[in-house]
Amino acid sequence: MGIDSKGRGLLIVLSGPSGAGKGTVCSALRTHAPELVYSVSATTRKPREGEVDGVNYFFKSKKEFEGMIEEGELLEWAQYVNNYYGTPRRFVEEQLDAGRDVLLEIEVQGAKQVKERFPEGIFIFLLPPSLDELASRIRGRGTETEEAVVNRLKAAAKELREVEHYDYAVLNDRVEAACDRVRSILIAEHCRKDRLFQEQPDWLEGM
Amino acid sequence: MGIDSKGRGLLIVLSGPSGAGKGTVCSALRTHAPELVYSVSATTRKPREGEVDGVNYFFKSKKEFEGMIEEGELLEWAQYVNNYYGTPRRFVEEQLDAGRDVLLEIEVQGAKQVKERFPEGIFIFLLPPSLDELASRIRGRGTETEEAVVNRLKAAAKELREVEHYDYAVLNDRVEAACDRVRSILIAEHCRKDRLFQEQPDWLEGM
Repeated sequence: MGIDSKGRGLLIVLSGPSGAGKGTVCSALRTHAPELVYSVSATTRKPREGEVDGVNYFFKSKKEFEGMIEEGELLEWAQYVNNYYGTPRRFVEEQLDAGRDVLLEIEVQGAKQVKERFPEGIFIFLLPPSLDELASRIRGRGTETEEAVVNRLKAAAKELREVEHYDYAVLNDRVEAACDRVRSILIAEHCRKDRLFQEQPDWLEGM
Repeated sequence: MGIDSKGRGLLIVLSGPSGAGKGTVCSALRTHAPELVYSVSATTRKPREGEVDGVNYFFKSKKEFEGMIEEGELLEWAQYVNNYYGTPRRFVEEQLDAGRDVLLEIEVQGAKQVKERFPEGIFIFLLPPSLDELASRIRGRGTETEEAVVNRLKAAAKELREVEHYDYAVLNDRVEAACDRVRSILIAEHCRKDRLFQEQPDWLEGM
């Protein structure tokens, strides 16, 4: 029969401090790794014009969302400004079962929850080249006071210590390079010998 | 200071059964991963015209080679038709210290020796898509009797079990795809968080 390179998909969790460039790298990955499926969040906020249920978000009532929390149907969740946001486990599992890799871009706190509930994920921490560069990226947004910038930097420096709990650290010096590193991690993880034996214990049969 | 992506180099050991396509993949890697350094073997056979000492081989006398064996200066060695062949550790270590990744293409038996003497290497096993394909590749060389082909196939089937001792299994269905997988493994291994902390324990300083 030989080896089937299409085993179960992998959940890739891409996290890192604010200002590391998670969003930019994810956008670039949509071009460089079009086979990746992006996790769809659930939320209780109202759909904006043009947003499609199941595509942009799974739109839920507050009662439905709280039911999902109780039933353990979320890989992580948080509340912002009176609305819930979270990652439904079912969508992720369905994609993985279909052999597709799923990317979840998420804040450090959310990633921590995912790690507890889905430890078999591949956890990638995105690193800014330096704190100086991080500062200039946060300042570059131009939307915050100097005090707010300093506070965000302190928070980011603290979040950086969380890299310890991740499998990989990817330097985001240039977006294309960071993208190539994430894509390479994905390919390499699929080639891990342990994974082959785990997912397809009989793949050596017929060899 | 930030993270230095130029830590110590990695030794990549590419092995696999006869007919898996090790040589073809290595040739392709010279184009697709030109930054890789290729391990240079030592041998007691006489240089052929145009062969340069230290480039094609390190040419040694029998006495010199046996001294290297005794001093543990070889990562692996074997004897074929009255000549010794082996992989000098020093050349590999010098390249790794200079931050360069080294590729060692080698038979399964040699890889076993390297694993004992250099367990921190990255061991990649190249897989033919199937035994049928392996048979047609071995036959395709057209240099052997049917009996010899059958014997080589039996040997290859036995060697396939050795994949168990490797870190990665790379399917060689298409040379470009196999090449991309090897290159990805290299990039991913450099991004492993454990490696970063091991090689540059202070890289978070100044973050």
